[in-house]
Amino acid sequence: MKLHSSMTRLALSPTRPLYPAILGTGALLSTRKAQHVNNKLQLIPTKRQHTTSTHISQKSSWTHPIYTKDQILAVRTAHRKANTWQDKVALGTVRFLRWGMDFVSGYRPRTINSNGQSTGYIMTEEKWITRFIFLESVAGVPGMVAGMLRHLKSIRRMKRDNGWIETLLEEAYNERMHLLTFLKLAEPGPSMRLMVLGAQWVFFSGFSIAYLISPQICHRFVGYLEEEAVITYSKAIRDLENGHLPAWSSLQAPVMAVKYWQMPEGQRCMRSLLLYVRADEAKHRDVNHALGNLNQDTDRNPFAARVGAQVQSVARSAGIRQLQGEGSRKEN
Amino acid sequence: MKLHSSMTRLALSPTRPLYPAILGTGALLSTRKAQHVNNKLQLIPTKRQHTTSTHISQKSSWTHPIYTKDQILAVRTAHRKANTWQDKVALGTVRFLRWGMDFVSGYRPRTINSNGQSTGYIMTEEKWITRFIFLESVAGVPGMVAGMLRHLKSIRRMKRDNGWIETLLEEAYNERMHLLTFLKLAEPGPSMRLMVLGAQWVFFSGFSIAYLISPQICHRFVGYLEEEAVITYSKAIRDLENGHLPAWSSLQAPVMAVKYWQMPEGQRCMRSLLLYVRADEAKHRDVNHALGNLNQDTDRNPFAARVGAQVQSVARSAGIRQLQGEGSRKEN
Repeated sequence: MKLHSSMTRLALSPTRPLYPAILGTGALLSTRKAQHVNNKLQLIPTKRQHTTSTHISQKSSWTHPIYTKDQILAVRTAHRKANTWQDKVALGTVRFLRWGMDFVSGYRPRTINSNGQSTGYIMTEEKWITRFIFLESVAGVPGMVAGMLRHLKSIRRMKRDNGWIETLLEEAYNERMHLLTFLKLAEPGPSMRLMVLGAQWVFFSGFSIAYLISPQICHRFVGYLEEEAVITYSKAIRDLENGHLPAWSSLQAPVMAVKYWQMPEGQRCMRSLLLYVRADEAKHRDVNHALGNLNQDTDRNPFAARVGAQVQSVARSAGIRQLQGEGSRKEN
Repeated sequence: MKLHSSMTRLALSPTRPLYPAILGTGALLSTRKAQHVNNKLQLIPTKRQHTTSTHISQKSSWTHPIYTKDQILAVRTAHRKANTWQDKVALGTVRFLRWGMDFVSGYRPRTINSNGQSTGYIMTEEKWITRFIFLESVAGVPGMVAGMLRHLKSIRRMKRDNGWIETLLEEAYNERMHLLTFLKLAEPGPSMRLMVLGAQWVFFSGFSIAYLISPQICHRFVGYLEEEAVITYSKAIRDLENGHLPAWSSLQAPVMAVKYWQMPEGQRCMRSLLLYVRADEAKHRDVNHALGNLNQDTDRNPFAARVGAQVQSVARSAGIRQLQGEGSRKEN
């Protein structure tokens, strides 16, 4: 087959036998898809051309663990007491950011007053989604920054990483999946996009510098940030259960969410989706609080190692204070 | 069990039932390990304390595909013709960096003159290892930078990434494993560490900016960089085969390498290790050249999708020029 290298979009060396093993591929596509891919790959490159992206089967290394119904229902809002000055810096920053965001967005969730009337800012489905999208767009940053900086550190210090990097990168991936899921339910306007852009720039720069100074405080910070996330999702779930979000009562979770969380038949409603997302945030909360307790240079990441039973035994004895109902916190 | 939260190194919420599923754990440790972990986790935090890091079983999401002997032997040095001005910029940069490094390190590999005498700079085992360590410490940067920037872009553009991120992050992980493997065979001195530190700082900054400007040129650049890596390892393998590296003739690959590449019994010598590493570099060369051909915003990553057969068919028709023996290139 006579083809100039410029005629093919895939430039490969003559190491053909390597391919199946090396690329971890080998499974054949359906004829139609195969034809499509073949055409795509051999297309002459045109700079900004927009190709229709068909969903070719694609496997992520980060398959989401399957949560049981009991597990996602067992999630509770929780708060870890700030003991050291580092804890207090982390918590203070989170409280300030939360206050700032609530102030800007004029967020004040529904509360029931003494006369049994619901007061406060009414969160509609749209307002919740907007809030989720913004929160998740920020939540996707720390894991990636931490993973990258630990990767570079491992290289220049010429030392093993003790298994932290992947847990952190997977966290970032998970948060991005949350974002992409909610984007299936809403199309943010230009102002929202601008806000996300600005927030990413500020938060990425700030968190990177902070992580270089004190990774420990940063993990504690994420721990407290995720405490807030769990509270927020719990609020939304409660609103949904109380019938304040009618448009969501019959709404089904997007297909990508069903695939990602491997949602079982009959557990694919909007409420289930929020329960799944909240469970993820609770995981990040606990993982980051734990990482914040460890020696950043010498301690192995217990979540990468097989210590499940131990983690639980420690969980039982952990001094984390469970809230007496979410209402008990001003930040709600 | 009465314990203050400060008494435990793991701060967890009361969502106990979630743990086994969430952390993907559950397998029990051997009693000794369990005791060790338990003790470690419940230790009172002390800032710079150095704990002995025992090797607790730890699974990476990025299990290395198993290469057959035929596959690693089939790898060849290759060169993709620079067609566009972008290609020429990428190739020029690589050639310049290579020249600079060879000049600084006074590297000039063994060549056989007309009288059959070997002339040139004699590369000892130590000199090869030093070169490998430096090269791998640089090679670990691009994949991480590209993966991170695409992750952030996906978030702020609120669009899917088309499966590029993981391939790039896995590349960075793979290069880091190369580095850690070679570090088992040599202990770099302070000057070497300083060089690596400086190189990382310069290369990380430069590559990040370049990737923001033109990811396409950057992937082409990595493609050409890996062409050089394959050439370098091929040289070392040839020296080893020609008996110029006696200390390696009987040397076995480090345990971590045997585990990582899943080296079969009888294929764990130093030569096999270099063949495995070279195969990885050849893969990165071809993957990055391919990504450099694609539309960075709209094209799906063909290596994440199941297109093995197609990749090969394209490989057969790809216009990449195989070198007439490594000796034919000045850059060798």
